[in-house]
Amino acid sequence: MPKKIDHEQRRRLLTEALWRVLTVHGMEAVSLRHVAAEAGVSMGMVQHYFAGKEEMVLFALSSMTEQVSRRVAAAFAALPDDADPLAHARAVLLQMLPLDEERRVEAQVAATFLARAPVDPRIAEYLRSGYAEGHAYLTEQLRTAGVPDPAREASLLFAVVDGLTAHTLAGHHEPAEALAVFESHLDRLSSRLR
Amino acid sequence: MPKKIDHEQRRRLLTEALWRVLTVHGMEAVSLRHVAAEAGVSMGMVQHYFAGKEEMVLFALSSMTEQVSRRVAAAFAALPDDADPLAHARAVLLQMLPLDEERRVEAQVAATFLARAPVDPRIAEYLRSGYAEGHAYLTEQLRTAGVPDPAREASLLFAVVDGLTAHTLAGHHEPAEALAVFESHLDRLSSRLR
Repeated sequence: MPKKIDHEQRRRLLTEALWRVLTVHGMEAVSLRHVAAEAGVSMGMVQHYFAGKEEMVLFALSSMTEQVSRRVAAAFAALPDDADPLAHARAVLLQMLPLDEERRVEAQVAATFLARAPVDPRIAEYLRSGYAEGHAYLTEQLRTAGVPDPAREASLLFAVVDGLTAHTLAGHHEPAEALAVFESHLDRLSSRLR
Repeated sequence: MPKKIDHEQRRRLLTEALWRVLTVHGMEAVSLRHVAAEAGVSMGMVQHYFAGKEEMVLFALSSMTEQVSRRVAAAFAALPDDADPLAHARAVLLQMLPLDEERRVEAQVAATFLARAPVDPRIAEYLRSGYAEGHAYLTEQLRTAGVPDPAREASLLFAVVDGLTAHTLAGHHEPAEALAVFESHLDRLSSRLR
């Protein structure tokens, strides 16, 4: 199926070019023309996939979400059959910490979107629904694990992860240090159940 | 001293215009011309205060830090004489949560800078040294309060605050909810000392 492969490769190529423009030059620099130049393709090719900047930016967000989802699925598959709800929560949250280059780029793209959210209602709505979904999932895992006040604890856990992500992105923490702080919080949460 | 007052008013006026440009249009839109237009003054006036964009952006960062410092000093002055180290840490951290419009704008400016840090060494260095200073202060307060492993706990506490700030900025939390999560973490830290 050469056509399908080509199609997916192109979308991937354009998304990567879009992320590079976003992380290096910022949201304001994103344009069909700039992404085409960055990807080394024609404007016409980019226009074949995206009607305009807004569509392209929202596609960057959703493709990032898909990439994280793929890693989460792989992490779940690697868990033992009897893994408890906290182990599942941990597996998800580890995909959000910038512990390698792929997650680092995602964290930087997410920071760019966060900075734009207060002035861009569509980005704000995308982030809000993503956070709500993540929070609901964490709450459910903590509730099932028997953590008291699971919604509050999920907010705290989520804040720890995003705070550590910001501090790693800023160079305040090395990835290993951020991971150790995250694990210590999760260990304490887990020890309170025993 | 009419001249001095005029001078300070102008710096304030320009800083506010700079923040508006930053938060509404992003870092890339910041230029002496754009800030002059936003402030409703001449280019010459802006050039009197700033040699270029980089100096102006770093001034925006340092003026934000000064504004936070002024609020921290006021919060310290309002504490009772026998306030413990955790009360001091709390007073500082409350100045970082976006609980009102002033702190919200600061959080948004900080998010913009964080998004730029990976591609701008001067901003990265400014953020890193600010985080290091904040972390050292928190560690010292927690150590004095008798918290075990104070450096680790300070990293966690700092992450909680910055994570909640991001979640509030994104509209995931109302300010009151973010405050409640923050207080619950601090209460638990405090209860482990008794």
